[in-house]
Amino acid sequence: MPSIPLETRVALQDQMTEYCYLVDNIGELDPLLDYFTEDAVLDFSAIGLPFMNGRADYRKFYSEVFENMSHHTHYLTNFRIDAYDGDSASTRAYVQGMGRANDGNEVLVHVRYTMDFVREGDQWKCRKYNIYPGMPLPASLDEIHGDR
Amino acid sequence: MPSIPLETRVALQDQMTEYCYLVDNIGELDPLLDYFTEDAVLDFSAIGLPFMNGRADYRKFYSEVFENMSHHTHYLTNFRIDAYDGDSASTRAYVQGMGRANDGNEVLVHVRYTMDFVREGDQWKCRKYNIYPGMPLPASLDEIHGDR
Amino acid sequence: MPSIPLETRVALQDQMTEYCYLVDNIGELDPLLDYFTEDAVLDFSAIGLPFMNGRADYRKFYSEVFENMSHHTHYLTNFRIDAYDGDSASTRAYVQGMGRANDGNEVLVHVRYTMDFVREGDQWKCRKYNIYPGMPLPASLDEIHGDR
Repeated sequence: MPSIPLETRVALQDQMTEYCYLVDNIGELDPLLDYFTEDAVLDFSAIGLPFMNGRADYRKFYSEVFENMSHHTHYLTNFRIDAYDGDSASTRAYVQGMGRANDGNEVLVHVRYTMDFVREGDQWKCRKYNIYPGMPLPASLDEIHGDR
Repeated sequence: MPSIPLETRVALQDQMTEYCYLVDNIGELDPLLDYFTEDAVLDFSAIGLPFMNGRADYRKFYSEVFENMSHHTHYLTNFRIDAYDGDSASTRAYVQGMGRANDGNEVLVHVRYTMDFVREGDQWKCRKYNIYPGMPLPASLDEIHGDR
Repeated sequence: MPSIPLETRVALQDQMTEYCYLVDNIGELDPLLDYFTEDAVLDFSAIGLPFMNGRADYRKFYSEVFENMSHHTHYLTNFRIDAYDGDSASTRAYVQGMGRANDGNEVLVHVRYTMDFVREGDQWKCRKYNIYPGMPLPASLDEIHGDR
C-alpha cells in the first residue's frame, strides 16, 4: 500500500463511502453528479452496463436510474489505496449493491469499484470510476439498468 | 463531513462497531445496556419496532430479544460522522442485520443506523439511536421482534 | 480496545482486508501463502473445515481451494483490535464469504475471523488464524471445501 497521510486516507475512504450515500439517496441528482469531474469517465462495461464519457453521459444514466428505482443500498467494504501522489489517488473497494425498481424487480450484485480521484481545492473529485464483477451477475441487472 | 480529530473519529467508529459485537453476543445483557445512557431514546418505529424511552424500555426489549434469538450477525459499513462538537457527536452507518430465532424463523434486514453519542469520561455513550429502513422490510421482522 | 498508534491500527485493518484480496484473487497462490508465517496455525475446525499446522498444511488447502473455485468474494467488516503489544497484535472482524465452485455449486457463509499478527520488518505476518461461525452454516460449505 503506498505511503499516504492518515487524514488523506480517511478522506478518500469517506469519499468512496459518500458515493454510496449519494446514489442511495434516490431523487437528489445534482449532488451525485457533482461527485464527479465534468469529464469523468465511468466505465461499467465489465458488468454489461454503459461506458460513459463525461457529464452528459453519466447525467443521462443516473437520471434514468433515479426515475426507475424505489430503493438502493450499496454496502462498501474492503477499502484500499492503490496509488497516491499528493494531488491524485486511486482507490478500490468491494460493494454489495442492491436495488428495487418501481415495478418491483429486484437486483443484487457483488462487485468491485475502482476510483481515480483528483484534488480540487479541499475536495476529492472522482474522474474515473470502474465497476468489475465479483460474483456472477444476475439477469435482473440487465433488466433494470440495461437499456440506458 | 465535520472536522474531527482522527483519534476521535476512529473511537466513534469503533463504538458503533461495538454495538454489533454486544448485540450479537447473545446472552450478556448488561454490557449491551451499558452501551447507552440511562435516559437513552431508542426509536425503532421507522422499521415497525418499538419507540423506547430510557433504560426500563430498552432493557425489556433487549432481554426479550436475547431470550428469543439463537444467532445474530450485524455487518456495519458506510460509517460517517454527521456532527461533532467535542463532547457530543452524531454518527451514521449502514447495517445488514440478520438473526435466527429459537423457533428457526430467520430475518434479514437492510437498515441504516444513526446514533448520538455523549462523552462520559473517556467513553462515548449512546443517548439516541434510530433505525431506518434501507430496503423494504421482510415480514419475519415483525414475527420475530414485533410484540415487544 | 487496547491503546495502539493510529498508523498501526490502520495497517492491521489493511492487513486483514488484504487477506480478502489475496483469497479472492483466485490463481495466485504464493502471495496468499506469504501472508502467513511458515509455522502459522490456521484453525477452521469450528466451521467443520481443517485444522492446519504450518505451511505444508495450508498450502495444500489453498491450492485445492483455488483449483476448485471460479469466484470468491469476502466482505470484511466490524474490524477491531483485541490485543496489541508493539510487535504482535490480535485482531477480529466479521466476514461474509461467498464462493462459486467450478461445478456451479455456491456457498455463502457468515463468519468471524480472528488473526494474530507478528511484526516482521515493516510487515505484519499472520501466525494464527481462526474462523468461527456467525450464523448457521450451509451444507454447501462442506460439499465445496470439506474434503481437504
